Amino acid sequence: MDPIVSIIAILALAKIFGELVERAGYPPMIGEIGAGIVLGPSVLNIVVMDANLEFLSTLGVITLLFISGVEMNPKALASARNASALTGVLGVATPFALGIVGGMLLGFGLVEQVFLGIVLSITSIGISVRTLIDLKKLNTLAGSTIVGAAVIDDVIGIVLLGVLSSLSLTGEIVFLTLAASVVLSVLFIAFAFTIGRRLATWTFEQSRTMQTHEMPYVVSITIALASAAAAHALGLHYAIGEVIAALLLGSQIRKDRSLFDGLIDVSFGFFVTFFFASIGLVLQVSPETIFSPLLLPLLLIALVGKIAGGFLGSLPYVKDRLAALIVGFGISSRGELALVVAQASLAAGIITAGLYSTVTLVVIVTVLLAPVLMKWGFARMDARATAALSSAETK
Amino acid sequence: MDPIVSIIAILALAKIFGELVERAGYPPMIGEIGAGIVLGPSVLNIVVMDANLEFLSTLGVITLLFISGVEMNPKALASARNASALTGVLGVATPFALGIVGGMLLGFGLVEQVFLGIVLSITSIGISVRTLIDLKKLNTLAGSTIVGAAVIDDVIGIVLLGVLSSLSLTGEIVFLTLAASVVLSVLFIAFAFTIGRRLATWTFEQSRTMQTHEMPYVVSITIALASAAAAHALGLHYAIGEVIAALLLGSQIRKDRSLFDGLIDVSFGFFVTFFFASIGLVLQVSPETIFSPLLLPLLLIALVGKIAGGFLGSLPYVKDRLAALIVGFGISSRGELALVVAQASLAAGIITAGLYSTVTLVVIVTVLLAPVLMKWGFARMDARATAALSSAETK
Repeated sequence: MDPIVSIIAILALAKIFGELVERAGYPPMIGEIGAGIVLGPSVLNIVVMDANLEFLSTLGVITLLFISGVEMNPKALASARNASALTGVLGVATPFALGIVGGMLLGFGLVEQVFLGIVLSITSIGISVRTLIDLKKLNTLAGSTIVGAAVIDDVIGIVLLGVLSSLSLTGEIVFLTLAASVVLSVLFIAFAFTIGRRLATWTFEQSRTMQTHEMPYVVSITIALASAAAAHALGLHYAIGEVIAALLLGSQIRKDRSLFDGLIDVSFGFFVTFFFASIGLVLQVSPETIFSPLLLPLLLIALVGKIAGGFLGSLPYVKDRLAALIVGFGISSRGELALVVAQASLAAGIITAGLYSTVTLVVIVTVLLAPVLMKWGFARMDARATAALSSAETK
Repeated sequence: MDPIVSIIAILALAKIFGELVERAGYPPMIGEIGAGIVLGPSVLNIVVMDANLEFLSTLGVITLLFISGVEMNPKALASARNASALTGVLGVATPFALGIVGGMLLGFGLVEQVFLGIVLSITSIGISVRTLIDLKKLNTLAGSTIVGAAVIDDVIGIVLLGVLSSLSLTGEIVFLTLAASVVLSVLFIAFAFTIGRRLATWTFEQSRTMQTHEMPYVVSITIALASAAAAHALGLHYAIGEVIAALLLGSQIRKDRSLFDGLIDVSFGFFVTFFFASIGLVLQVSPETIFSPLLLPLLLIALVGKIAGGFLGSLPYVKDRLAALIVGFGISSRGELALVVAQASLAAGIITAGLYSTVTLVVIVTVLLAPVLMKWGFARMDARATAALSSAETK
């Protein structure tokens, strides 16, 4: 198929499905993945994942992580930092440990165990935040804890990715390589937040004085891409570069509403769509996937691990079992980053296509389930508050 | 080079060069083409024109023409239709005839003569339109005439391409194929302005009522791409589809300032840059090319043919010799289509590598010269108007 026609088919179907899914109360990314599944080998088999789509998809994940980074509010996160820290750590440690143990019991090797541990322990920031906004619960204690924990989650997940990539290259955890990658990361981050910050700020300020009207837009995209490429060249994941670029430029971009809107448009209105659709395009759902004996155990590990971790981590701070349960629900969705890891691992030959399909299905189920569980939890909490209020009035 | 790094290099250098050229008072696209020349095989040879860049470049010319179409005033375009028609016809006929005669005098055979006639008679609608936008002269009488003539030019050019390809395949001209492509063009345009218009308007109106915030943005891009793809599938250039899509949606997009700004950002701030840079990237300048005895005659034919054709075609309507000269300048640049024809002819063995390089250089020179000539012409016209105004005031 003509690449332009493939693009049209994906854009149109992904946005129609996304709209339908959003109207049904779920995150639209499910619809966009669904469009990929329908167009891909699982159903119609009319769009092939070629080099052009892969390229758009790479630009999609870069812009997605950049926009997510810009949308983070550092101050609001700071207030819930203790609850977030313990929740984030336990919210990663529990599913990671369960993933390793589960992988062992299911007969997988070390690399696949680590893969399972990582892929099951990375929360989707986008889905958590989006659900909290939809439910108007972003500024509750539970809400702030969820967002903060998801951020910490992400950072730990990125460090764990270093473990996985060194494992996949050499077959064992090479502590020297790992140490080198940690040192490189630290140097990169140190550079980014000193010289890099000044350079980025200076470049961005200069761009506002240029005659070229679209210069701030170009500078934002160029810095985002350059940061991703620099991280990638150092053997780190694009994600690290993106989060850093977003933190460096975030406050300036947020101040310029029209620039921010333009960047959101091109991300969610174009590139990101190809990222989600490409996940569906490479998925081969077959009876073997759906009836895979791995599906139920992995789904259980994914849900129990996150919900238990979130519950235990937040209980000492929120001091309410229902609120703590909601925090557990809130960090239970895996999303884009887990899928990135799974895709990269499949491409690197770490995991089989069968395990990849199963994990993708697990991710999709958690993404679908988390907003439902959160909605239920918050509704119960509201009902309890109303009941307490009315019983106080009757006294 | 990593495709992401190529993108960063092109974006950064093109925008820096563009800014410098703009500060010097010329259209920034000259700098963007220059960045391509510097990064490409002619100078540094560090960026290769690969499939990804070609794809971005195609999206670039599509979005460029779409934005231009949206910025165009349909009424101004309609009022200049007679001027455009004659200018379009003479603007093709003159360089085509000169190309044939020149090719004969230079000792070329029939197929090469036809090749020269065609490659020298296809105006680059992208270059003309971008220059008019940069000079803020798109909706003047000369501007509308240039755009209209370039569109007509394109249709004639496509028919001529049919001549060339049937000549190269069979050695003679197949009139049935030619008639079919003309009929298809007419049917396409008729469909677009009846059913197509209603469909596009309805879809766009629906998109505003959706929960998906970026839907109008997605719908605009999808209709633009679909129209380009439909034109392309019928054997026409993407350009025709774009201008039509833009005319169908223009008034609705212009009404929504934030949507329009977002589309301009993604075009000029991203895709379009790759279109201009790619013109420079494919240029291979060697001493043999520069000192080729063919260069000067071909350049003269190219410039004299178009400028004379544009001047003669528009003079009866614009009734001003300077304005008619500007129209001639405005249609004097050859661009992407001429380069595609040259590439295809080289690949088909119709022309030698030497003639190919020379023609490519001629194209680049016209591309760089046309904006300079247009700017000079419009500046003279403005100066004359100011002088007339002040002499009227002193009376």
